[in-house]
Amino acid sequence: MTKEKFVIGLDLGGTNIKGALLDMDGHTREKIRISTLAEQGAEKVVDRMAGVVEDLIQWGNLDKSQILGVGVGVPGQLDYRAGKVKFAPNLHWRDFPLREELVRRLGVPVFLENDGNVAALGEKWAGAAREARNVLAITIGTGIGGGILVDGRIYRGSGGSAAEVGHMIMDENGPLCNCGRRGCLETLTAAPAILRQAREAIAAGRKTSLAAQKELDAKDVFIAAERGDLVAREIIERVSHYLGLAIANLINVLNPDMVVIGGGVARAGDILINPIREKALAHSLEAAAEVVRIVPAHLGNDAGCIGAGALVFQELEVRLV
Amino acid sequence: MTKEKFVIGLDLGGTNIKGALLDMDGHTREKIRISTLAEQGAEKVVDRMAGVVEDLIQWGNLDKSQILGVGVGVPGQLDYRAGKVKFAPNLHWRDFPLREELVRRLGVPVFLENDGNVAALGEKWAGAAREARNVLAITIGTGIGGGILVDGRIYRGSGGSAAEVGHMIMDENGPLCNCGRRGCLETLTAAPAILRQAREAIAAGRKTSLAAQKELDAKDVFIAAERGDLVAREIIERVSHYLGLAIANLINVLNPDMVVIGGGVARAGDILINPIREKALAHSLEAAAEVVRIVPAHLGNDAGCIGAGALVFQELEVRLV
Repeated sequence: MTKEKFVIGLDLGGTNIKGALLDMDGHTREKIRISTLAEQGAEKVVDRMAGVVEDLIQWGNLDKSQILGVGVGVPGQLDYRAGKVKFAPNLHWRDFPLREELVRRLGVPVFLENDGNVAALGEKWAGAAREARNVLAITIGTGIGGGILVDGRIYRGSGGSAAEVGHMIMDENGPLCNCGRRGCLETLTAAPAILRQAREAIAAGRKTSLAAQKELDAKDVFIAAERGDLVAREIIERVSHYLGLAIANLINVLNPDMVVIGGGVARAGDILINPIREKALAHSLEAAAEVVRIVPAHLGNDAGCIGAGALVFQELEVRLV
Repeated sequence: MTKEKFVIGLDLGGTNIKGALLDMDGHTREKIRISTLAEQGAEKVVDRMAGVVEDLIQWGNLDKSQILGVGVGVPGQLDYRAGKVKFAPNLHWRDFPLREELVRRLGVPVFLENDGNVAALGEKWAGAAREARNVLAITIGTGIGGGILVDGRIYRGSGGSAAEVGHMIMDENGPLCNCGRRGCLETLTAAPAILRQAREAIAAGRKTSLAAQKELDAKDVFIAAERGDLVAREIIERVSHYLGLAIANLINVLNPDMVVIGGGVARAGDILINPIREKALAHSLEAAAEVVRIVPAHLGNDAGCIGAGALVFQELEVRLV
């Protein structure tokens, strides 16, 4: 009898490396999380990634021959053909041959994918989008990430950079974005934008419970809004306005059956998702609004590594039972 | 020896029905154009469409057994499964069983497709996008149409209404659109929007050569701009601004290798395409801007019927040599 096969998914973030061991039924058997320690340099980070894989194999009482492959979600631009990370700002990597370095350490097939794309695939695989065919996944956190599934498969576009929804320009006279342009969705709605708006309101002397907060966090703005703070409510109103409008335009263009909203900020829940949904449906054409469901992500922090595991199945064209 | 096979493409417009006979090498053998006469009612229009098919068969000295199928580009929303036109505003059709009616008259397979999508496929098949893989086609005319190709095939989305780029909202406080919303791309940049801006400038007493024009046409605005008319130039500046920004956002999301710009208004040429291209590239991320070419459509009025013919090949999964 042949031994049971598995895949491993890694979610490489600026702060943490997460790993998951998935069986052929798509179930998560083991999970692990360690610090990235990006400041120690790329070689050390790859060593740590390889360590996560070795640990998962050991924890699962497996031998390496049982691992079909390792998928990796990467926070940056990829050269898919060469298996290189072209640019990952949070890791300070440029043109790093990640696939080659991992294959050398692990001796199993390695597949790289953008983190927004693996999050979308994770939700399709084991989360909110299981039944969906054409999916837009939006991650609201330190930045705004995106992933598009066409017929259940990742859509990368012609240069591997599709689904950069965070840099859709929503207000040309808006605040300066890290990308050098003004008024990108990210610079109007991601966590730093929420904080900026809170600080500006405090500096302007607006009456708000946020002023009493010591270390202000985007989460605090949602908590204050839930308690009735008017300044916090205004901020969420503005943020959900821009997100709703951007999502409406994307619904008109992509006509997806599902939009999944995830990421740290989205964990605020209904207070953010409800107004986004309302605006997105009101601003998109009836024909497209009728077929789309706008839902919160289910997998939370695990979407990345589960999606990275699912990627291996997709890339190897393995069909599960 | 078996007889040579052909396909027929029909472009059903509010004003004209166009037809093309394509051979298996993808070449256009015969073309025809007649008036739609939509006011005579749907049954009469289908009779006229069937007449175009019969004429093309006769002109080509063919018999019906040589026709693999008839593709039809339709200006409206389709129920693909049922072969029905759900809503075609220019024809005043609602829930019309076009496929069934055509099959009954013709006795050959019939395939329906949205007109924006067939225009994209036409350009891929025999026009500007031959070498392209992921394509966004935008048609600027009485309205703004769109078509998306993913890996060379039409992307319809989950409800068949993908690529409605004309209803991306660019300015929520903008003019009222036919769809009931405000500031859609269409209501800011299509031919009627160009005319509206010209008339407003004249009514406001602005000094412009357009004021002397008897029956003002969108084309006149481009001619005036080329002759140095400042009001006309301002209008084109605004129109290309919104088109450029919308296309930039679509480039970030779709990461296409080609954007094809066609339609009656786009026939103005460089005076419109150049500023659109400049703005679109400046407002999209470098990674996506690097891989995209923004070009004028090649097929002009024939994109629709050629694309509708190509649709038959796509639907029958016929691979050309």
